[in-house]
Amino acid sequence: MSVPKNILFIMFDQLRWDYLSCYGHPHLQTPNIDKLAAKGVRFDRAYIQSPLCGPSRMSTYTGRYVHSHGASWNNVPLKVGERTMGDHLRKLGMGCWLVGKTHMKADAEGMAQLGLEPDSIIGARVSECGFDVFERDDGMRPEGPDGFYDDGGALKYNDYLRSKGYEGDNPWHDHANSANDGTGNVLSGWFMENSDKPANIAEQDSETPYLTRRGIEFIERQGDAPWCCHLSYIKPHWPYIVPAPYHGMFGPEHFLPVVRATAERETTHPVFGGMMKAPVGQAFSQDHVRDKVLGAYMGLIKQCDDQMGVLFDWLEETGRMKDTMIVVTSDHGDYLGDHWLGEKTFCHDTSVRVPMIVYDPSAEADALRGTASDALVQLIDLAPTFVEVAGGKMANLDHVLEGKSLLPLLRGQGQTREYAFCEYDYSMTPLAKRLDLDTAEARLFMVTDDRYKLIEFGGGIRSILFDLKEDPDELVDLGESAEHQHVRTRLSSVLDTWARRPSQRTTITNDALIQNRSQRSTKGVILGAYGEGDADADLTEKYRNRKAPPIGGS
Amino acid sequence: MSVPKNILFIMFDQLRWDYLSCYGHPHLQTPNIDKLAAKGVRFDRAYIQSPLCGPSRMSTYTGRYVHSHGASWNNVPLKVGERTMGDHLRKLGMGCWLVGKTHMKADAEGMAQLGLEPDSIIGARVSECGFDVFERDDGMRPEGPDGFYDDGGALKYNDYLRSKGYEGDNPWHDHANSANDGTGNVLSGWFMENSDKPANIAEQDSETPYLTRRGIEFIERQGDAPWCCHLSYIKPHWPYIVPAPYHGMFGPEHFLPVVRATAERETTHPVFGGMMKAPVGQAFSQDHVRDKVLGAYMGLIKQCDDQMGVLFDWLEETGRMKDTMIVVTSDHGDYLGDHWLGEKTFCHDTSVRVPMIVYDPSAEADALRGTASDALVQLIDLAPTFVEVAGGKMANLDHVLEGKSLLPLLRGQGQTREYAFCEYDYSMTPLAKRLDLDTAEARLFMVTDDRYKLIEFGGGIRSILFDLKEDPDELVDLGESAEHQHVRTRLSSVLDTWARRPSQRTTITNDALIQNRSQRSTKGVILGAYGEGDADADLTEKYRNRKAPPIGGS
Repeated sequence: MSVPKNILFIMFDQLRWDYLSCYGHPHLQTPNIDKLAAKGVRFDRAYIQSPLCGPSRMSTYTGRYVHSHGASWNNVPLKVGERTMGDHLRKLGMGCWLVGKTHMKADAEGMAQLGLEPDSIIGARVSECGFDVFERDDGMRPEGPDGFYDDGGALKYNDYLRSKGYEGDNPWHDHANSANDGTGNVLSGWFMENSDKPANIAEQDSETPYLTRRGIEFIERQGDAPWCCHLSYIKPHWPYIVPAPYHGMFGPEHFLPVVRATAERETTHPVFGGMMKAPVGQAFSQDHVRDKVLGAYMGLIKQCDDQMGVLFDWLEETGRMKDTMIVVTSDHGDYLGDHWLGEKTFCHDTSVRVPMIVYDPSAEADALRGTASDALVQLIDLAPTFVEVAGGKMANLDHVLEGKSLLPLLRGQGQTREYAFCEYDYSMTPLAKRLDLDTAEARLFMVTDDRYKLIEFGGGIRSILFDLKEDPDELVDLGESAEHQHVRTRLSSVLDTWARRPSQRTTITNDALIQNRSQRSTKGVILGAYGEGDADADLTEKYRNRKAPPIGGS
Repeated sequence: MSVPKNILFIMFDQLRWDYLSCYGHPHLQTPNIDKLAAKGVRFDRAYIQSPLCGPSRMSTYTGRYVHSHGASWNNVPLKVGERTMGDHLRKLGMGCWLVGKTHMKADAEGMAQLGLEPDSIIGARVSECGFDVFERDDGMRPEGPDGFYDDGGALKYNDYLRSKGYEGDNPWHDHANSANDGTGNVLSGWFMENSDKPANIAEQDSETPYLTRRGIEFIERQGDAPWCCHLSYIKPHWPYIVPAPYHGMFGPEHFLPVVRATAERETTHPVFGGMMKAPVGQAFSQDHVRDKVLGAYMGLIKQCDDQMGVLFDWLEETGRMKDTMIVVTSDHGDYLGDHWLGEKTFCHDTSVRVPMIVYDPSAEADALRGTASDALVQLIDLAPTFVEVAGGKMANLDHVLEGKSLLPLLRGQGQTREYAFCEYDYSMTPLAKRLDLDTAEARLFMVTDDRYKLIEFGGGIRSILFDLKEDPDELVDLGESAEHQHVRTRLSSVLDTWARRPSQRTTITNDALIQNRSQRSTKGVILGAYGEGDADADLTEKYRNRKAPPIGGS
């Protein structure tokens, strides 16, 4: 099997699967990403493992479900001992570097327990979820009365902006993520009424082109050794604001129609209904909010696509297109008012299904170039894929990695997955308080197969079921449909089996377990033998014909 | 709340719950352990978390289910990052020391990954599942054609034996665990035909008195600082052989009648039936084997009890009885032919229920001295109990520790547990091969409540159900009883909820999750605000009245 030498793992943030022209958007042309799709495989049913940045990414990087690694919400630290794609790839001789966002929060307590210093090589890798850092840029420098959301957020980018003449204590906010009234007053991008205005920054200085250049700089510096580069953009994530000319490209005539039904708004489901009532759901249910935001959101994506053009052209020129696997995906989607919701944090496809395009330059992948796959895939499949590209064998790692390599799917060698799983832990949100759920209850689990999607809740809350074939827009909740009881029972049982999986048996390979089954006890433990003749002679040899002086009186 | 200063955590190995006179054995008088029971609380429904040394102990030491820590069979390493009672107690200012057995296997790969050296203080603790080691003695030095079962096993004890004049390369085997024909020929204790003979060793030199003395030496060396001592005996675990005079104390007239039914032997259940067919089950189903072994087993227990007398008298004399909590328990039981089985590794009470006596010298515990409790308790409850004795609060640790403190039960303050859980992973055993199960399937889960016990299996194997009230001997498998379908469904659902618990969310306390619910976003992330007026003024202050020069052309 020939494999690419390098991996360029591009992740956008909050990019809906259906906001790219190769996925069918009629008005948002993304020719550069489309071109990659034409060279690779476009996965039409790619699911994230949690609809929120932090847990989704921790699953992607570890190749494990949230229920397995435990970092179940933003800023819940990924515990020491969890290994990530960086750890696995380095062992295989491939560097694994970060350029951009991870949303990783280090497990300071666990590191202290083990005496790991954050500034040691090992400590730094543990702190950065296994990546070596070329540039960490979580792309966010919010500031409130209690200080910055992220002490390290966007510091380098702010330095860059200052070097380009953007002054002030936080040009990330005042220029990259705000408009200006033309007389020197900042119109903050945090307020969506400003989303249709241009960000007060030259386009080439905004964060997406900046990060593209940083990615290119990283690759330029690489020698002959194979590398994996996680080029991880913050956009099209909020604040929803984009510099000219992208701010003015898209109006309501270009928007996808809002997907929502009156019946949804009348749901009695406490979690779905509760999310609608949250400020974000309320805001995005208003047309004037959508009208302001969607143009910016589409502009941000258009800018991302243009930057992909810059990047892919450069890769072509430098020959990297021939030896580098390229993945384009996202950590989750964005409701944008669909289903009366904003943001993510629930389980409609709008939120949990993402674009995923994988380009493999190997000859074995030629047959499927430009095709779409409706195979169910998960973001935790990327780590196993990369392990195989780096020359590793999943048989040595399938006790740790819970995904499956995508290489067979890229090369037409079948391999299907029956189910995809997603989870959301809302135990630290106001909704959990309103519903008076304890911290174990305020969690939901989703499973989908080739037709249905079941969402189950803790705390005695009833399930939600969608029939994706009859109702692809997921407008009809069959959670109480008597005729679908058997479907719910079946998928609930799938979730139960999944929940019992041995996800923590990570210190022994499955191969070793299997081999042990056939091994005799050759190290002297003899069980069930009444006499010497009840055990194989070679096994008891050490216990035969032994001499020892009898003790007195025995 | 007053708490004891120290903790003496005594564990025997393979001690059945019903082989002590305080638990009702009519012929095996254990007055010393009984005396402790008279001063403390005897738990009549104490369950281990896995019927095998290694996983049972790893659960006890971590306070977590096997499904949570993953060390699911003997010598499956406990992964780096799992914290144990030692880690928790030391943080609270209490030393935590090992004298005896743990069956811990270090996670060498995980340690190397994090650069932890086994001979560093931290590395040594990680290697010894959190204990500081006064003496590690797993009590086993088997030797076969491929060498020793355990490279470090019983080395110190062997040195001790040699210092006492027992010569040879392995006096552990030749003297402590073998008889002698009187002319210098070793009659190995591995062969049960020798079990009725006396071990060729002076009683005071055998392993149980040796370890008692080592425990006393440890305590003698302690100064004023509080300590927890895990005094962990190998006995009455096999090899089934005991020195005089204990070898001759018990004959068939003293044995508990064997508990087995013909109907059991005719079971079609592949796991239960498969275990019966294993060599150990076959051996212990023969009366002449039981006749040889049971006398030795009872003699070993009698010796243990006599040593408890030595130890408790010494504790009384030195004043430690007044300031030390004492726990006596076991890691699992022993079938001894009941249910046509030997050893452990299945889920009848014979195997999964253990004696547990807890003596708390505090005045608050006076009211319940000498009482029995039929509350369901688990061995993972010990770590939380010890944390509270050391002055810790479970509210700070209930995101890691899955048990509950026993202190309320010791002090008559109610607190009940509805269910106890146990698991067994047989994926590396010959049975899994015979049944052609994969490594995720060859596992079983048990749940018991105040009446029933359900055992569920992977791989499509049907469940087993016992009605402990109608059938306390567990002779009637109700796994296919139509009238018990509702019981199986109910308990299966309990297991499902259990399996979905957030066992890996160990880097954030439940208190922190709860507190976050009520916290406003005070670090600048403003979601769902169309204009400034849509968010609290203090939260958006940093975004108002900001000045920045407009860029050209904006």
